This record gives sequence, C-alpha cells and structure tokens, in this order.
Amino acid sequence: MKAMPDPKLPLYLKVAQQIEGQIRKGALRVGDKVPSIRGLRRQQGVSVSTVLQAYFWLENKGWIEPRPQSGFYVRVPYKERMPEPEFRATRNVPTGIGISDLLDKVVDSIGDHSKVPLGAACATPFYPNRKLNRIISRITRTDPDHSARYESTIGLEALRRQIARRAVTYGCSLSPNDLVVTCGGMEALNLAVRAVARAGDVIAIESPTYFAVLQVIESLGMKAIEIPTHPRTGMDLDALASAIRKHRVRGCISIPNCHNPLGFVLDDDRKKELVDLLARNNVPLIEDDIYGDLAFTADRPRTAKTFDTEGNVLLCSSFSKVLSPGFRVGWIEAGRFQNAVKRLKFINTIASPSLPQRAIAEFIESGGYDRYLRGLRETLSNQVQLYTQAVMRCFPAGTKISRPAGGYVLWLELPENVDGLKLYQAAFAQNISIVPGAIFSANGQFKNHIRISCGHPWDDSIDRAISTLGRLCVRSN
Amino acid sequence: MKAMPDPKLPLYLKVAQQIEGQIRKGALRVGDKVPSIRGLRRQQGVSVSTVLQAYFWLENKGWIEPRPQSGFYVRVPYKERMPEPEFRATRNVPTGIGISDLLDKVVDSIGDHSKVPLGAACATPFYPNRKLNRIISRITRTDPDHSARYESTIGLEALRRQIARRAVTYGCSLSPNDLVVTCGGMEALNLAVRAVARAGDVIAIESPTYFAVLQVIESLGMKAIEIPTHPRTGMDLDALASAIRKHRVRGCISIPNCHNPLGFVLDDDRKKELVDLLARNNVPLIEDDIYGDLAFTADRPRTAKTFDTEGNVLLCSSFSKVLSPGFRVGWIEAGRFQNAVKRLKFINTIASPSLPQRAIAEFIESGGYDRYLRGLRETLSNQVQLYTQAVMRCFPAGTKISRPAGGYVLWLELPENVDGLKLYQAAFAQNISIVPGAIFSANGQFKNHIRISCGHPWDDSIDRAISTLGRLCVRSN
Repeated sequence: MKAMPDPKLPLYLKVAQQIEGQIRKGALRVGDKVPSIRGLRRQQGVSVSTVLQAYFWLENKGWIEPRPQSGFYVRVPYKERMPEPEFRATRNVPTGIGISDLLDKVVDSIGDHSKVPLGAACATPFYPNRKLNRIISRITRTDPDHSARYESTIGLEALRRQIARRAVTYGCSLSPNDLVVTCGGMEALNLAVRAVARAGDVIAIESPTYFAVLQVIESLGMKAIEIPTHPRTGMDLDALASAIRKHRVRGCISIPNCHNPLGFVLDDDRKKELVDLLARNNVPLIEDDIYGDLAFTADRPRTAKTFDTEGNVLLCSSFSKVLSPGFRVGWIEAGRFQNAVKRLKFINTIASPSLPQRAIAEFIESGGYDRYLRGLRETLSNQVQLYTQAVMRCFPAGTKISRPAGGYVLWLELPENVDGLKLYQAAFAQNISIVPGAIFSANGQFKNHIRISCGHPWDDSIDRAISTLGRLCVRSN
Repeated sequence: MKAMPDPKLPLYLKVAQQIEGQIRKGALRVGDKVPSIRGLRRQQGVSVSTVLQAYFWLENKGWIEPRPQSGFYVRVPYKERMPEPEFRATRNVPTGIGISDLLDKVVDSIGDHSKVPLGAACATPFYPNRKLNRIISRITRTDPDHSARYESTIGLEALRRQIARRAVTYGCSLSPNDLVVTCGGMEALNLAVRAVARAGDVIAIESPTYFAVLQVIESLGMKAIEIPTHPRTGMDLDALASAIRKHRVRGCISIPNCHNPLGFVLDDDRKKELVDLLARNNVPLIEDDIYGDLAFTADRPRTAKTFDTEGNVLLCSSFSKVLSPGFRVGWIEAGRFQNAVKRLKFINTIASPSLPQRAIAEFIESGGYDRYLRGLRETLSNQVQLYTQAVMRCFPAGTKISRPAGGYVLWLELPENVDGLKLYQAAFAQNISIVPGAIFSANGQFKNHIRISCGHPWDDSIDRAISTLGRLCVRSN
C-alpha cells in the first residue's frame, strides 16, 4: 500500500506525510503528542515554517489537534471525536461473584464461529499458521517421538530458554529454571491465584477486568474486591491501599500492559508504584501480561515484574493472543511462589502439550517470532484505528470509546439508557458476537458498556456489523 | 513368534499349547481359572482323558495348578510363587495430606529420562508415533488453520463423537454433547473434584491410590478419608459406608479398571454395588478409567458409569496412558455435574490443544486406534508377565506382588523391614527410577511398598535393574 515518496512533493508535504504514515501505522497513536516544532526541525533539518506548514496540513486533514500551551496531539481523524470512557471512583466491598450463569451463556456464544466475530479476543486471520505448520511438519520427521512422553512439568527447556531470553527486552532477568510452561495464560492465572490464596481470602482486582478472572476467584471460594480503574492510569492506588487496610487481601490481579478491556499501557512510574505498594503490604501481585507483546509503542513496554525486587510478582503470559490460541501454551514466573506453582501445575495438568512447545521454541529461536510480531503490531494498530473510526461514525451521540495502546479490544461506554446485555442479545440475533460489559465486574457495574474485538481484518462485513450495532443501540434501552 | 500348529502333534498337546498361548498372550492371567474339564471337552470336541493329559502337561510345565474341589488355575510359571500383597482393614479418619515435599521430589525424579524407567507409568516405546505423525502432517496440509482459534471449551466435536461411539463397548451410552475434553486425565480429575466439593469437605479415596489424587485434595483445602482397598475386590464397601455415615463425605474417587497401583479390574457386581451405595447416599463417584482400554481381558471391562442411572458418576479418562502423554488429551463425562465441569474447564484452561484432538479423532475414526489397542494390550500383558517373573526371581523371600488385570504397573509389598523410601533413594543413586509406596497414602501406610512400571520393553537393562532392586532390598532396612 505504501508508495515511494514523490520527489516533486513540496518539502512540508513530505514531512507531513511521514507523520501521517506514522499515525496510520500506529507508531503515533490517538492522544500521543507529535514531536515539538523545534524537535522536528532539528530531526529533519528543515525550517520552522516548513514544520508549521506540515502541522497545519495535518490539522486540516484531521490527524492532529493543537492543545493550548502544550503542542500538537494525534486525534482520531473524524469529525466528531468521541470522549474516552469515564472513570468512577466507586467504593466497593468484597463480594462473591454472582454472574456465572450470564458468563456461561456469553462464553458459549463468543466461541460461535458462525457469527461476525467481534466477541472473542482472537486475531485468527493474522496468525502465522503457514510458518508454524512448516515447523510442525519438520518436527514430525526429525523427532517422531515428540509426544511419546510427558514433557517436564515446568516445560520444554528450549522454550523456557527462549522466553527468558526475550524477557530482557522488557527489563526482566528471568531464569529458564524459574519458569513454568502452562496450558495457556488461563492456567497460569489459575495456578497463580491458587498459589497465593485460599478459600475465604480476598483478591483485589481491577474494575473492569477480564471476566474469567472473576470466575476463577468464585470457583475457589474466594472473594473479589473491585478497585476502580482509570482508562489511562490504571488502578486507583489509594483505593487499593484502603482495601488492603480494611480487608484480608491476599493477592492482587492486574493487567498493566494492553489492559483487557480498557487498553491502556501503564507507564513505568505507575507500574513501580503498584509493585512497591503491594510489596510493602506483602500482597502478591499477579500480573497478566498476555497482550504485552502487542503494545503499539516502538519499545516493548516493561512489565510490573521488571520493578519487582522481592519475588512478589507472579508474571503470567501466553502465546494464545499473539501466535496460536489452539496451541495452549502459556507460562508463569511465580517469584517466591515458584515451588507452589510448580506443584499445582503437576496436579492440574501434569505437563503442557509437547509439540506446540517445540514449535514455538523453534519459531522464536529462528528470529521468525520477533519479525512476525513487528508486522502484527502494526497491523493490529491499524485495525484498532479502523474499528474506532467506524464506531465513531455509527454509534449514537454520548458513546465513549477507549484508546487502546496495544492489544485489539475496544471498550465502549454507551449512553446511560443503553443496556449492554440487551444489545449483546439483539446483536447475537443478527449474527454478530460482542461481549456485554456487565461480565467485566461482579458488582453490577458497566451495564451500559460493551467490548469489541478488532481481531478480524477490516472488511465490509465488519463495517456492516458495526453500523448494525450502532442502530441496535438506539433500540436496546 | 507364533508358529503354525504342527499337524503331527498329539491331540492333548495341541489343546495344551493353545491354552499355553492364551496364558502367554495374557488372555488368561495369573489367578484365572482355566476352563473346566467338561467345558473344554465340549468346546474342543475331545475326550475327557485328552483334556486331563493336556492339564497335567500344563501343570508339569508350571503354567497351572490344581486347587482342591475347584479346578485348575493359572499360576506364575516359576518355582516359588509369590503371594499377593495383603489387605489390611485399618480404621481411618479424614486427614490433611502431609506428603507434599516427598511427592515433589518423587515427581521430579520419575520424569528423569536418564534413569532406567521403572517409575513413570508411561509406555513410551509402544505408542504409535509414526501413525500419529502421518496424521498430523496431513492435518497441517489440509487444515492449516487448525490451531488459529480456541477449540470449543467442551472440545472438538469429531473427537467427542468418537469417544461416545467407543463408550458403547463398555456399556455406556454417552452423548457427545455431554463430554468435555480436558488437558489430560489429570485436568479431568481436578475439574471433577472441584465440581463436587469445596474446601473443608471430605473425599473418600482408595488406599492405596494414585498419588496425585492426594495432592489435588490437599491443594483444594479438602480432607481425604482413606478406605482400605483389597488387591482384588477393591474398596471395602462396609468401611466406605461407615465413613459416609460418620464424616462429611462429598465425593468418592475410585479406579475400578486396572487400578493404579493395585492392578485389579472390579467385576460388574462390585462396580454396581459401589455405584448403588454412593447413589443411595448422594455421594458423587469420580471414576478414573484412564487405564480402562488396557485391561488384559478379552472384552473391554465395563465402567462403574455403566451402572449409573442418576448422573451421579463423573467418568474421567485420557489418551495419555494409551496413545500419547505429550498430546494432553483427556475427557470427562460428569453426569449431573456437567455444567459445573464445563464452567470449570473454561476458567482452568479455556480449551484443550486443538491439533492433538484432531489427530486422535482421525486415528479412532479410521479404525487404527482399535487395531493398535488390540496389539498393545497383548504386548503389555506379556510385559507384566516378564517383569513379574523377574521380580519373583530376584526379590527377597517375603516379597508379595500384585496380579494386574490390566495396565502396566506392579505393586510390591516388600518384607516388613524394608523401607520403600530408602529403596527408592538407593535405586535412584544407581540410575533406576521407581515410585516409593509411601506416596500412595496420606496416613503413613505402605512404607514397605513400591510401584514398578512395566512400560519399557523387556531387555537386559530392565533385567539388570530388577536384580539390582532385589539386591538393594536387603540393604534398605
């Protein structure tokens, strides 16, 4: 799609189109500040007036907007910019989870492949299946006994080595021997929760949070205390500190990178603050980094684990969102809970599937994984922009939309009178799958919210589905 | 190995060698009654004296032995016949499990592939890897997106259909929709226990039982009540009934077919009695049938589930012991707990690995699985005989040995002064892996027991390892 720059273009236009390209590719995303006038002048070796001309051109095209005394910022290039979802600092108490029946239904429906797939957070058409199949075929020839024994409970050493090697890119020094390979990120979360708490204990969670987290807590007879979570800055740490003072909080689950469903990437200071607060209170942090490799920023964001000096962070991740959900390969580095996690892994599933571990290890080792990731991040960032624009075009006034810094889900706050659950049902009847916001909380919040996955390549069917959703909003109240 | 019968042989010898063949193949196993004199006469159309001659010949060769007023029975063809392990009707109370540290060590060590593998219950060299690889390669070509989405939480429909179809052979009418495919049998057990009980509840288990069962119970904050279990007739049902009367028993775990470690296959009446007793008391039965396809009997034994009319039995099984441990494919039919199990499956691991499910479904559908099974059963029955004979030759007087009716583990009761744990350590130092009996119970029983796996083809290294074990017994007291 990208044409070579036209040599006859005026200089300011070349500069402007370069920035436009960065926005389109997602290197600059909505809300980001573009380089300062002086910065760009130095960087490109052009005059201030050329820079200003370029910025006016971008502003006219709707790509950026000036903010007083601050500079230019990337905006969504559409007439009416929708605000972000609101943050409400509600006061919560620990609760049992009462949403299981609803969850069962939703879980059933989001796996239904016959629907327009705006439900499941899965980027099926983008995964490198051909490359993985080539590796699998080779393994069946060169190592025919690949699955004839149980893999070690902590996982294939070659894979653990690659995971540890890559962890350096996000500032973590992990030892292959401290990793446990799991059956997907979900098993990692499960083992983590079981390692740190028992029935009756309270777990602090973000609100909203990934719905399965709620069910894990319920199924183990624990309670959840929901901590209000800001769409950009994450958990309200004062509320978290207060919850720890008041309740028997035995663990805290957070998704600092590419939050599901809010989409934020916490900055390093916030991550460190969170880690320090929990360490001071001896509350283990279960960090879900399952989308961490999918941040749209140039550098892979650090994990909260990066700032952990006491083994108090249990870092959970997976290849399911990035490479292959069907492989069921995730992992956990459980810090001081390593022995407990290893034991739980054995009695939960003995070991993880062998062949997928080998295939992923080879893919990473060959360099293929990181090359693939670079392309995928760009693609997903574009996807999110395209879906965002469609929502802005089709949804009723009063809708608010998240600004994901990575991953591929959008979180929509609909006008207050719109019932997300009714919308989910109406959409399903029209063969469109979405996730109602109500299942992202145990205490009745987010009734007028929905989550939309941008994991399907933009096409007419998606365009039509989003207009249909916009129309259905009006009727779902 | 089997030569055509020599036409010049006397008739009695033909008859005798036919029976010898059945014993060698395992169709008749140690302790089985051979056909009565009248029965055989009718069946073969020969005279009583021919039958008697045949039986005397077999007796002289040491294959069978007469029992007063009862007939002839298959014996181990060796000079000194070892007795079976003893049954002790101990009185137990519910206990927490205190053997986790020992278990961690043992679990680490039995996965060590550098040792002579008498530890892990795994028949690696016998699995049909070539056939499975051919199927996998074909799938990568014909269905390249096989792992690009989450398989349905309950599992691949084609596989569930095949499992349901095969269940007819053991008298179960299962619907594909009521099955949940799991990450191995271990996940099935886990989900089952979590579905029927909560922290603080008591689970009745066989004593001895598969050690991981104990850890599952402990990890969930539950207690175990150990029910004395007879090496032939299984759980002491009076003791079970009494435990149910006295304690808050919320579930019962049993391995009615090819028990691990005792090796028995319960007869149908005992299975029915167990099912009825539990149903009357509203205690769900978790049936572990992971070795059920490996019984040495001509017909596939029925499951306890076969006699379940109320959805009170949760039938758990797996392809790990039979086909491929590294695939991590097991399954559960949870009766009236199906919804709970399905929900737990989702939050435990979302779904099971996709490619292995496809490969197994194709292998069963093609008829390959059942053909392969017939050969495997015969092979394993021979293996068990060979290992048994070596133990009888090499172990000290006073050793007792189980008579497995299927599967591939032997349970040895050593002379009382032999410490199984010391033997395990001494063996490990000699690069031999076995499992100490102490981990098969939570209350300090079976200290002078060990479990030996017969999953490695009989060869000199196994022969030497078993003699070494026999010698070490003398020093491990």
